[in-house]
Amino acid sequence: MKELWESRKKLVESHLEKELREAAPLDKTLEEAMAYSLLAGGKRLRPILLMAAADAVGTDGTRFITTGCAIEMIHTYSLIHDDLPAMDNDDYRRGKLTNHKVYGAGMATLAGDALLTLSFEVMLRQQGVSDAVRLAVVREMSQAAGRDGMVGGQAIDLESEGQEIPLERLRQMHLGKTGALFRAAIRSGALLAGAKTEQLAALTRYAEAFGLAFQITDDILDVTGDEATIGKPIGSDERNHKSTYVTLLSLERAQRLAEETVAQGIAALQPFGDEADFLRELLRSLLGRKQ
Amino acid sequence: MKELWESRKKLVESHLEKELREAAPLDKTLEEAMAYSLLAGGKRLRPILLMAAADAVGTDGTRFITTGCAIEMIHTYSLIHDDLPAMDNDDYRRGKLTNHKVYGAGMATLAGDALLTLSFEVMLRQQGVSDAVRLAVVREMSQAAGRDGMVGGQAIDLESEGQEIPLERLRQMHLGKTGALFRAAIRSGALLAGAKTEQLAALTRYAEAFGLAFQITDDILDVTGDEATIGKPIGSDERNHKSTYVTLLSLERAQRLAEETVAQGIAALQPFGDEADFLRELLRSLLGRKQ
Repeated sequence: MKELWESRKKLVESHLEKELREAAPLDKTLEEAMAYSLLAGGKRLRPILLMAAADAVGTDGTRFITTGCAIEMIHTYSLIHDDLPAMDNDDYRRGKLTNHKVYGAGMATLAGDALLTLSFEVMLRQQGVSDAVRLAVVREMSQAAGRDGMVGGQAIDLESEGQEIPLERLRQMHLGKTGALFRAAIRSGALLAGAKTEQLAALTRYAEAFGLAFQITDDILDVTGDEATIGKPIGSDERNHKSTYVTLLSLERAQRLAEETVAQGIAALQPFGDEADFLRELLRSLLGRKQ
Repeated sequence: MKELWESRKKLVESHLEKELREAAPLDKTLEEAMAYSLLAGGKRLRPILLMAAADAVGTDGTRFITTGCAIEMIHTYSLIHDDLPAMDNDDYRRGKLTNHKVYGAGMATLAGDALLTLSFEVMLRQQGVSDAVRLAVVREMSQAAGRDGMVGGQAIDLESEGQEIPLERLRQMHLGKTGALFRAAIRSGALLAGAKTEQLAALTRYAEAFGLAFQITDDILDVTGDEATIGKPIGSDERNHKSTYVTLLSLERAQRLAEETVAQGIAALQPFGDEADFLRELLRSLLGRKQ
């Protein structure tokens, strides 16, 4: 499993660079700024989930690496914009200076804009699927990334700054901010691989559990994690009076909820055989997250 | 012509609102911020060009109002981000406070992000065309709006602030910043209407002339325009030491170049009959621009 993860991660790294550098850029600094964040490492979890979902449906997931790169571009753009002075105003990300600390807030805004736009171009480069499937993926991604998905969740986050919010609003925020893109990754992998309706439904339930478990364990990490490993200061949520699953539920109850959610996600995969083992492993690994 | 222009503009206004409000939003402030700029008036030139290009090919352009709305969303997002404090830092746009002056720079960034993302969702709502054509339009738009189009041009602009740049670099900047989206509007209209190869080529030449003439007359307006009509202060380019066609060429030579460019665009439409009259009129009207 560890080996599969690593080999897929390497595949993502090399393809990201290829998709980014497809053509000579109009402005070199802009391309540099895009590459700075896109090629800065990271877990590459979204493309890995996309490929693993295709595996589960019975098609080699690496065939869809192109669409995997597209979703990683969306994720990277969202990090660049989140870090901006007008948003979270973060100086470091994955132990490196944030994009605007290196290129300035104007260029960082543009680098994010360009990565989001490029992601749609890259989705269309996906080979070996019908036009109808390609369109379904564009629809999936645009809905997940936009007003009622990732950007919507980010807006709730921005408006909730420094104040306690109810658990239901917190859930909505994360459904948008991180859940929607995980869901789109997994559903896109399934759509590309030609999943049947029941398979798509099962994978969607898995995806929703994955998103929730990811967020709860992310909140737990902010309290229990190691600063050097996660690449940002510990306890920042509490200092910033941010509502999290830990502050609203207690550490113990948050841990229990994470375990229950993982169990639900595994149960959702019941219709699949061992071709879904990687998906199972990815979900279980959240409970032991170090970063 | 004036009547056709006004009726199409009204059509755009009503459809923009419909496409924006399609679903209940996750965050109300975000939707408000999107609507604030999207429904703030404006010439609606890009959707009008898109429809006029379809007319020229012989299909009623109003059939493609949905894609017209999508491109107006891309244009609006670019204005919101351009106005941000980290970019041009403008307080007014079309005589109204800019988005970030009302909603803050963080929410304005998100409103732009959400409009860009929504535009791709809206493109897919276009009825009455094949999947292949829908994909061709998404490709056209993503290439025009991104790194090697609009965002690339904006990056050149940001880097050239306060310094004189050579005419060739100025041309590249505008090809990206405004030309690419005009080109995509006209080509998308042609593609949606099923244009033949020669028709598409002719309309592309027209589009390139349109983009250049638009920019030159824009630069001229900054010197000769009426502050109340154009909704922003006169002479701001010169005060900001911005290179323009007027500062690099002189007012007279810029005017002559605009006239020549308009003539070239009209000549490109030679293969078309009177079904391209609106396109001709739209291009000629640039020479008499008041806003």
